[in-house]
Amino acid sequence: MARPLTFWFDFASTYSYLSALRVEETAKAAGIELIWRPFALGPIFAAQGWDSSPFNIYPAKGRAMWRDMARIAADRGLAYRPPADPSRFPQNSMLAARLAIVALDHPQGPLFCREIFRAQFERGQDIAAAAILADCLDRAGLPANLAAEAESEANRPRLREATERAVAAGIFGAPSFTLGEELFWGDDRLEQALIWAQR
Amino acid sequence: MARPLTFWFDFASTYSYLSALRVEETAKAAGIELIWRPFALGPIFAAQGWDSSPFNIYPAKGRAMWRDMARIAADRGLAYRPPADPSRFPQNSMLAARLAIVALDHPQGPLFCREIFRAQFERGQDIAAAAILADCLDRAGLPANLAAEAESEANRPRLREATERAVAAGIFGAPSFTLGEELFWGDDRLEQALIWAQR
Repeated sequence: MARPLTFWFDFASTYSYLSALRVEETAKAAGIELIWRPFALGPIFAAQGWDSSPFNIYPAKGRAMWRDMARIAADRGLAYRPPADPSRFPQNSMLAARLAIVALDHPQGPLFCREIFRAQFERGQDIAAAAILADCLDRAGLPANLAAEAESEANRPRLREATERAVAAGIFGAPSFTLGEELFWGDDRLEQALIWAQR
Repeated sequence: MARPLTFWFDFASTYSYLSALRVEETAKAAGIELIWRPFALGPIFAAQGWDSSPFNIYPAKGRAMWRDMARIAADRGLAYRPPADPSRFPQNSMLAARLAIVALDHPQGPLFCREIFRAQFERGQDIAAAAILADCLDRAGLPANLAAEAESEANRPRLREATERAVAAGIFGAPSFTLGEELFWGDDRLEQALIWAQR
């Protein structure tokens, strides 16, 4: 019995977008069950002494990332568009993540997650805006009242708990994939993680 | 006429070892001319405020790298062995790099570079030791007197110049591959870089 693969992502992460758009069909083709797990990269970066994305802190690394994203998105035929205003990267993904956690209690959860990534990286929208998140719920066929549930006292701790589990799993960036104790970092390790899952 | 691909590496870099051992046959299979270009990652890291490898500065990232290396090396059937004493990572690669620059003036240069990587990451040897470098010259069929040439006044500036060219090319890590203005970072981008070279 193959083990399930956990897909850890932050909605603000460019490479998480790349994985989100292909992980479901790729895992399905490999016959591997998939668990979507949003977490918050910000506190993990802060614990490393970073007050922003390393792609902003280290400009050469950032320039290479944007070019890499453009090449890969073109190769994959994605509708990706880089941010019109790069100073707004990374976006605040906390609201989106809390909403995704409740959305993922429903079968449309993964579709909703992809819609958030598309809003940001294909339509250039602000995923911290309630109206954009409401539109993503609608596109995924989920009820608008999930937004209130996401911000409830019962739900708010779940993102922090997911982030604590990410840290405990050794996660330091996104996307990451875990399979028991094995940690794979980066969209470019998805295929390898699935091969391990099949063993 | 396909453009040549430049392979930028630092001998202390684990992922550069992975590329060094496969880049020649992979480029040859793609019909792409290859240029080996040692440079010094240390000054580039120092300019980013790092006094060591990011794999040491960020422990979770470091743990993931060592595990990633072990998995990939096993998948590729390499004789890779992690350092017995991880506190000695990264090794001082300056002598090796200066020697590689003169060795690469000879046809055996790429073989010599692979021998240095193997000494360090397969045989657990210290590539800052003159005796180890002499052994690598011998294994590559190169004359022992290249060691003196490497440390000559004429040769010493060439490593600094290579590093300055790396910075000018936007390089911030190793291995990197360049093709005109296009920069590809990481062993996992080699195939993509070769596809671009073929266009």
